[in-house]
Amino acid sequence: MTITITAFESSPDRGRGMARDMRIRWALEEVGQPYDVRLLPFEALREPAHLALHPFGQIPTYEEGDLALFESGAIVLHIACCHAGLLPVDANGRARAVAWMFAALNTVEPVILEREAAGYLERGESWYAQRLPLMERRIHQRLGELSAHLGDAEWLDGAFSAADILMVTVLRRLESSTLLVSHANLGAYIARGKARPAYQRAFDAQLAVFKAAPAG
Amino acid sequence: MTITITAFESSPDRGRGMARDMRIRWALEEVGQPYDVRLLPFEALREPAHLALHPFGQIPTYEEGDLALFESGAIVLHIACCHAGLLPVDANGRARAVAWMFAALNTVEPVILEREAAGYLERGESWYAQRLPLMERRIHQRLGELSAHLGDAEWLDGAFSAADILMVTVLRRLESSTLLVSHANLGAYIARGKARPAYQRAFDAQLAVFKAAPAG
Repeated sequence: MTITITAFESSPDRGRGMARDMRIRWALEEVGQPYDVRLLPFEALREPAHLALHPFGQIPTYEEGDLALFESGAIVLHIACCHAGLLPVDANGRARAVAWMFAALNTVEPVILEREAAGYLERGESWYAQRLPLMERRIHQRLGELSAHLGDAEWLDGAFSAADILMVTVLRRLESSTLLVSHANLGAYIARGKARPAYQRAFDAQLAVFKAAPAG
Repeated sequence: MTITITAFESSPDRGRGMARDMRIRWALEEVGQPYDVRLLPFEALREPAHLALHPFGQIPTYEEGDLALFESGAIVLHIACCHAGLLPVDANGRARAVAWMFAALNTVEPVILEREAAGYLERGESWYAQRLPLMERRIHQRLGELSAHLGDAEWLDGAFSAADILMVTVLRRLESSTLLVSHANLGAYIARGKARPAYQRAFDAQLAVFKAAPAG
């Protein structure tokens, strides 16, 4: 059955692979599953046809026969459940990998996104400069905890898993800041993720979309 | 095998059931699974023994034989996977329920928590009153999308599922505000969740902990 995902026709990150379709592309590349991409202009996100697929009007969505999914975490988990290689084979190991998937999206990503969203939406406000250190302190707290857990390990919990796809893509949001500097093992962890051939194929695919996009 | 979860010895919400152990208690009550609770004072959250269970120093954790989990979403999903009644039986329905679990925690909860955290941490700051409408606009956007999806339905996607446990507990964070007033079907949805006998047993159990807690 053909898999079709949605992505931005013209990604606001100019091809840096920060949009959430990157996670899905990476997971599909890891398991060797081909996929089609339906590109959407921003105005299409609020159209009834898209809201029927994604009630919150975002990308990515995932369609495969009768199944339609949204939420990048759920889509990556679905791919990991249907194919070997992205979750441990033992039940306890799988449950732990799922815990790390939720940790990436529910414990680490929100503090990072809060700073990112403030950068877009509140940079012109009088309080922005004063609030920035507060937001960055929260990020450092989480990064410190994550760094302490990771230690010298290659991946979050044993072998590479779907949780690493989510955590690496979450941490990459900080690449353009200096926040990762004091957590060297996290920088090396991101680099390990990006060095995987599946990551590189996924990155190149989304970059090709940006390069082909109508000038914005 | 005995299930042991962790919870606050003295919950900061004074027994209103807002701490994340409530989600786990509710799920376990829905499937009729008994459990033990290990109560932790706040200072224990940063001790090595607890950080080994929960790398981010939070509650709840979940222990069952050799398995140790953290992240309330992952714990609820683990319970739902191991027992009948909290996920549809067909594979596509299960994948959709998981999508709604991630939506509750990754799309709806962060905007609600940002406002809640600002209330705790920034209420004394000069910008608090100016930022409040910005934060509330983001919440209304998400609530409006959720309300449009729910319509007249009882639950998020067909029968009651683990996703409703997460979404109801997320939305309950707004009960003490007026933000839900303009989304009447969401208020009714929360009320349906709270009317379930399993919810009530879980609520009473966490309230009993608060009432028995040493005066703080």
